[in-house]
This record gives sequence, structure tokens and C-alpha cells, in this order.
Amino acid sequence: MNGAESLVKTLLACGVDTCFANPGTSEMHFVAALDRIPGMRCVLGLFEGVVTGAADGYARMADKPAATLLHCGPGLANGLANLHNARRAQTPIVNIIGDQATYHRPLDAPLTADTEGWARPVSVWTRTATRAASVGADAAVAVQAARGAPGGVASLILPSDVCWDAGGQVAAPLPALPVPKVSPDAVQNAARVLRSGQPTLIVLAGSALREAALADAHRIAAATDARLITPMSNARVTRGRGRLAIDRIPYSGDAARAKLAGIRNVILVGAPAPVTFFAYPGQSPRPYPEDANIHVLARAEEDLAEALARLADELGARNAALPAAATQVPRETAKGAVTSEAVAQTLAALLPEQAVVVEESVSFGRAFYPGTVHAAPHDWLQLTGGAIGAGLPLATGAAIAAPDRRVVALQADGSGMYTLQSLWTMAREKLDVTIVLLANRKYAILLGELAGVGANPGKTALDMLDLGNPDLDWVKMANGMGVEAARADNMETFADLFAMANQRKGPFLIELVI
Amino acid sequence: MNGAESLVKTLLACGVDTCFANPGTSEMHFVAALDRIPGMRCVLGLFEGVVTGAADGYARMADKPAATLLHCGPGLANGLANLHNARRAQTPIVNIIGDQATYHRPLDAPLTADTEGWARPVSVWTRTATRAASVGADAAVAVQAARGAPGGVASLILPSDVCWDAGGQVAAPLPALPVPKVSPDAVQNAARVLRSGQPTLIVLAGSALREAALADAHRIAAATDARLITPMSNARVTRGRGRLAIDRIPYSGDAARAKLAGIRNVILVGAPAPVTFFAYPGQSPRPYPEDANIHVLARAEEDLAEALARLADELGARNAALPAAATQVPRETAKGAVTSEAVAQTLAALLPEQAVVVEESVSFGRAFYPGTVHAAPHDWLQLTGGAIGAGLPLATGAAIAAPDRRVVALQADGSGMYTLQSLWTMAREKLDVTIVLLANRKYAILLGELAGVGANPGKTALDMLDLGNPDLDWVKMANGMGVEAARADNMETFADLFAMANQRKGPFLIELVI
Repeated sequence: MNGAESLVKTLLACGVDTCFANPGTSEMHFVAALDRIPGMRCVLGLFEGVVTGAADGYARMADKPAATLLHCGPGLANGLANLHNARRAQTPIVNIIGDQATYHRPLDAPLTADTEGWARPVSVWTRTATRAASVGADAAVAVQAARGAPGGVASLILPSDVCWDAGGQVAAPLPALPVPKVSPDAVQNAARVLRSGQPTLIVLAGSALREAALADAHRIAAATDARLITPMSNARVTRGRGRLAIDRIPYSGDAARAKLAGIRNVILVGAPAPVTFFAYPGQSPRPYPEDANIHVLARAEEDLAEALARLADELGARNAALPAAATQVPRETAKGAVTSEAVAQTLAALLPEQAVVVEESVSFGRAFYPGTVHAAPHDWLQLTGGAIGAGLPLATGAAIAAPDRRVVALQADGSGMYTLQSLWTMAREKLDVTIVLLANRKYAILLGELAGVGANPGKTALDMLDLGNPDLDWVKMANGMGVEAARADNMETFADLFAMANQRKGPFLIELVI
Repeated sequence: MNGAESLVKTLLACGVDTCFANPGTSEMHFVAALDRIPGMRCVLGLFEGVVTGAADGYARMADKPAATLLHCGPGLANGLANLHNARRAQTPIVNIIGDQATYHRPLDAPLTADTEGWARPVSVWTRTATRAASVGADAAVAVQAARGAPGGVASLILPSDVCWDAGGQVAAPLPALPVPKVSPDAVQNAARVLRSGQPTLIVLAGSALREAALADAHRIAAATDARLITPMSNARVTRGRGRLAIDRIPYSGDAARAKLAGIRNVILVGAPAPVTFFAYPGQSPRPYPEDANIHVLARAEEDLAEALARLADELGARNAALPAAATQVPRETAKGAVTSEAVAQTLAALLPEQAVVVEESVSFGRAFYPGTVHAAPHDWLQLTGGAIGAGLPLATGAAIAAPDRRVVALQADGSGMYTLQSLWTMAREKLDVTIVLLANRKYAILLGELAGVGANPGKTALDMLDLGNPDLDWVKMANGMGVEAARADNMETFADLFAMANQRKGPFLIELVI
């Protein structure tokens, strides 16, 4: 057995059975091993940003890691932006990067690069395999590291001779790393703060947004008048009709400060202290009041659900009444002009049961999240690290992980262009994805930011924020990659297309001109 | 004057007047400054790989650096693969990366990343600006560093408060860094080797391929029976009818070993010792005989032209006869089936005078370089670092730098998909680029590599190397980005389209089904 075969068998033994790949020469022995060993589903992406973003979307829905297969340092580099997003989403990924043979690397051939140096900043674990005999064990540790709480990218660099050399040994799966429980002091402190009667905000993220944890958080809030909130962007929120709703901290600093005005205490549950996305001259980068006190109930790597349960116990809130879940059934689709609110209304009415919504709608999508609280039950996946170009790859991976659910990608055009190659993978794999491509033909968010700079933008600036001249034709681009598509410029057409697309097998793109 | 304004004015004072950009929020003050200060041509790319590759292509033709403008660590990450290629091409680039404000960065907002850590491996110089008062001086040093011999990527990280703070000061251009001359010992040693009568190879790269240096190299070879050669991939070779031709070391290890068999001495002139692109089991990663001696006439950072001139003097070869330059005028275009040789023949007949050929044809292009030696005078630009996706961005930047010359991009389909967003920039800027898109609908080079692994490829492997299912339709994709296009599947149609395209203003894509 060569090293590549031991690696593939170890991955399968550890429950990793899906590989998003863009292989090159140095990975040919790995590819050959995939041929000989059944059990690994391989999904080809035509650009590494598709591969890494798909691995992120997959794990968010499958609750286990996929493997990637990337080609040397530059192939990794092409996937880094979406690995950055995965890092912020705390997504488990076994990130495999083929590389030059151990004895070839010192010769500095043209493709040789600092693969480890590029991998480390996005990874919770990075290792370069050195021998065929130990690469199986390396892979088992990588899977364990990726799945540790809260989850992360484990990067295994794979020199080609480690793959082709004989002597590979399959490693057994390693036990899950223990998830630390919060200290009694942290629970007591949070309880003391909540009993004080001061205006208190509880910020929830990561696994604190799963159903049982969120219910405990709601019980705590109901018993203490605390407010619950999440960061603006989350890896996955389970929501919709019949489920407990939770608000988000707005993206805009002004709106966030307005929403958090008067707060005296902030309790963090798996979330960092709130911070604005960017700094602006003369504005605080913290959206909460300067005199608010920050308390940590649980850090991201601790057991968030258990922490919330213990806090609810401590407060005698385990039996507190839950707020009413959304029950209204919106049926009316919007008519007329295309606005953010109108799209939200139509989504609320037509979203399929158990849809997976992948939202990278940037500026235009402001009404989508609040406007879909009564939509059929669904999951909501977002761009977590601000590195645009995540949406279409996330949708690709989510559809692989959840083949019985419709994926709805709400995708801004500027961001969509970053990883449009995803469309081809959707077509090839016949994924049930409805892409709502929001074509405003500009970097609208930046026009707002430029106005904030106080400049009257001139031609040079406007040209740099304008996606028109020429207009992108998403119908043609989608068709060119094998995805059927149509255009809508009013809400009636959009509703018809959206309802039709969701009934189809395979992907469909709606270019919604906004 | 704020920091951004001082930066723009300093760049202009240093002769940097072209900026390839994909800005984000943290760069809005820079964008606003570009509006207020005339003189900088800004070219928008819809993905950072387009931006960095275009900056590479620009500098290869303009012989001076452009600036980039990238958005934070992830924006840099998206541009790294083409910066890797630029590093291998020794291309001067002033690589400007906007980033979080100095006081915001420690708060670890979602987009915050290890910007410096990602930049260093591709850069000859990396600095994070810290104050508005000094960012002008930082920029002047960056330009100086980028332009130092042999040229490289100077990465200047630009926190947003450094841009918006008052107190910016314009810096004067710094003098060019001195280019070290080779030692007399190196010249003497090379002369001794060449006089020995042993079979000797002179490997030329970088500025040794410019006209005067190359002529001296040919004189040396003529006087000593040494052989001249270049690496397989070069930043820029000036060639064609009436010019001295030079051969390349083949990509394939077997072919390279056959070509270099019997060589006893290798003299390096700005080139690294030859190395195969990848290692293979049981094969030497060096294509020259094991007992050959390696000698360095000049390292890449030394004055290569001067070294060759002195060596020619030393050998009394300054008046040696030059080999006959190619003079034959090929007029016959190919007919019938599409082969590599047929395409080369048609290129040789129809290439416009002073065309700039950007070649990323990977496996299919094997006949293009040898087959165009008699074509009209042209420059030949290649993928230098093996990170595919360089071709279309290089063509974009070369066309900006050389607006009076036709750019001909010979582009493989798999590589073209990496940075297809380039087509939009070509359309927007109305660049005179003819794209010959070689559609074999597979990663053909990898099928060869897989065969080399000895496997009978099965469905899993074949699927991972296949770009069909569905076929990419490049005509539709190009049209979707505003580029006119047509398809050819025989040489007659190709010749007609190629001749027509080269007469047009603006870009035209020919999907050549091979």
C-alpha cells in the first residue's frame, strides 16, 4: 500500500467521505488511489475558491468535515479567501494540499512556494507529511483537529513522494477531543449580572444557535429581561416558522450603536466582543456603550449548550415560558418594482420547506433576514469572514451535503463574479440550487462607503465601483457553464421563476435586475 | 493633505501612473484621492487574480511597475497565485493592500487576517505603513525596491487611518538601486570553462534575453561552440523574423534529459540551475547529467548584459559572426484538422507585426514556440511560476502597457477558467486582444501525468480531469462579459477568424475546439 492509499483509507475510516478537489500533477497518486478505493465522493471545482468554499458549505450542513484536494502553494493561495471565511465560521475542514516531493522542494522549481506559511493563518492545525508510513496517522490527527471544538481548518501538506512511496499504514480514527466545560465561576458571574436588573445583552454564536441551546438562551432572557442577539454574520442559523427568532447586530456602526444604546452588560456565549466591520474616522469601533462591562459565559471552544443549560438552571429558568415562535403563514408574493422588501416578501411566501438559504446579498439584502422570519423552516448560511465570493461555493457544498433539500443562493453580482466557476460544478453534479443573482451592476456597498468619506465621487472613483460598461449578462454566463437561467426585472416575473426553479431538478439561475 | 493623497502623489512622482484595482471599504480614501489627483490610470478587475496578473503583464511590457490596489488580507490572498508568477518572472509591482485601521486591527473584526504573513513569500519588500506623515516615504521606498534588479513585488500594506489622517507628505523619487556587476573571477571562470572545449551549456534568463545581451551570448556561443538555452518559461522573449532565436529546456523531464545529454558544464546567466517542474519516482529532478559542473557567470540580481559583454570581450568574441536570424516569411495558413502544429503554422503566417503573444497553452501548445520562429517580430510572454490562470490577466495588462500593439492570448481552457473575469476588463477598456481559447475540455496535461503514474484511470480519476459534462461554452461566457466571440473547429475557420479578429478594435475571443 502506498502513502496515498493509506491516506484515503484513513480518511474514510475517520468518516470523511467527500472530497472537493482541484488536483494537479503532484496529486496524481492521490487521484489514482481514489480510483482504486471505493467510498469517496469526489467533486471537481474549476477554481480552488470553489473547492474550499464548497467544503465550508458542506460541513456547515453535514456537521462533519469534507476533505479538499489542492495543488501546491498557489492552489492553496487561490482557496485562502474562502478558508478565511471557514475559519471565521469555525468550520471543520480537512484541507489537503499536494506539494513537491520532499527532495524536490529544496531545488525551488517554478511552482515551489511557502505552502506552510500560507496555510497557517487560516488553520487550527498545520502539518507537512514526511513519510508514507506516517501519513495515515497524520490524516487521523488532522480529522481530530478539524473536529475539535469549535471546529476549524486542519491543513495537511502532502509531498508527492509521501504519496507514491510504499509502506503506507491505515490509521484508526482518534477519539473526539474533549470539549471543555465552563467553570462554575463563569456561570455564577453571568447569573449575578443577569440578576442585577441592569440592561444586559447576551451575544450568541456558533453552536449556541442550535435549537436546544437557543431555547435555553430564550428561557434565560425571558426570566431576566436580558436581550439576545447574534453577530451580523453566522455560519448557520436554524430559523423560520415555528422556531425561535433571534435578531442580529446590524452591519452599520450607526445602526448597531442605536440598537445597543443603554446596554450596561454584555455576556458573550461563543462570540467575540462586538466590533464594527471597519473603522471610520471619529467613530468608536465598538458598537456597545463605552461604559458597558463585558463578561464571558463561554468561549468558542467551550461547551456552549451546556453552559446555557447550567445558567438557566442557576437562574431557575429551565421552565420559563418561551416566547411565541413565528406562526404566521405568509402567502402573498410581492408585485411591481424590485426592492429588498419585495424580494423578502416573495421569499417568505415561496421558500420551500427545509430550504438551505445561502446569503451573500451584501447591500441589497438588508430586508431578507428580518423579512423571512415567518418563512417555512429553513437554515440560513452567511458569509462569515467578509471575504466576498463565498456564496456560490457555499451553496455548492451545502447541496452536496443535503441532497434532499433545496438550496437557495441569494447572491450579489459583484461577489458572485469572484467564484462564478461554481455554476459549472452545480451543473455537473445536478445540484438542486436556485440562484437568485441580484444584479445591481455596481459595488453598491462601496458607493455608500465612498459617500461616507465625504467625497463627491468623480469619474475615476465611480468607474472603480461600477460593474456596468459593459453589463454582465448572467444568463449567458450561466448558460456557458451549463446552468439554465432567466432574467426578471419585476416581482411578478421573479415569483413565477422562483416557484418554477424550486420545483426543478438541478440548478437554475434567476438574474434579478435590481 | 491626507495620507492617501500623499501616497498617490508620490506614486505619480515616482513614475507609477497605472493602478490595477479591486478596492473595498478600507480603500475608499485612496479611491477618493485618485479622483482629486489627475494622472493615475485606474483599471478595475472583478477579481484580484486579474488585478495582480495584469500588473505583471503591464510591467513586462512597460518596463516599469504598475500599482495594484487590493482589499485586506483576503483580497491579497485572491491575488497571490499571480503574484507568485510575478515573483518568478522578477516583475516589478508596487502591491498596495488596504487594511484595517491601525487601532481596529487588534479587535480582530471578521475580515482581519494575517496580511503581512501572506504577502511576504511573494515579495522582495514588505512594509505596513503606520502614519500618514510617512506613507509617502514608504511608497517611494516601495517603488525603489520593486525596481531593484532583477525586479520584484514590493508589498505596501495600508491601514485605512493612515489614508484618512491629515499630515501626508509627498516623497521625492529615490535613486535606482545600484545593479551589482559580476566579479572578474566569475568572468574568468566562465571563459576558462568555455575555452576547455568541453560540451557547455549557457542558460540565459531575465534581462539576458533582451536584444543586446542575447547578441553577445550568441557571439560567445559562436566563438566557443557552447550551446545557448533558456528555461522553459520566461517572462518575455523578443523574437520572430529578423531576430536571433533561442531554444528552451523542454518541460518533460525525459525530453530535457535527452536534450542536455553529454553536457559537461552549465553556465548560468541570471537563471537557476535547471530543475524539472515536478519530481517523478526514480527520475532525477535535474535534467542535466549528474557529472556536469555548474558555474555561475551572473546571478539574477547582477548586471547580466554587462557580464555577457565582458565575457565576450574576454573571449575575443565581440566581433564573432552572429548566426543567421530567421528570415523566411511563412505565408501559408494551415487547413483541415486542428493540431498544435497546424495552429503554429497559422500563427506564423498571420501573427501581426509587433504582436505581444501571451502563452498559457499548457499541453496543446507544444508546437507554438518552435513553430513561430519565423513569424513577424513579436514578444512572447509566458506563465513563469506554474500557477495557472496567468494568461488572460497578463494579456490584459500587456494591452494596457502597449496600446499600439495587438495582444494574442494563446489560452488553455482549464487555466482560462481560473481568471475568466479578465474578459470583462478587456471589454470595458476596449483592449486590442485576440484570445485563442484552446478548448480541449479536459485537464489534458494531467491525463498524461496520470498515465505516468501507471494507473489505468477509472471513472473517479477521469471525472476529476474532465472539463466536459457539461462542456464549457466560451462564446457564451465571453458574450456574457461583453466580449464578442466565435467558435472554430477547423483550421480554415480559425484562420479567417484570427485574421479578422486582429484587424478589429477591442477584444475578440475565438473558441478553438481541439
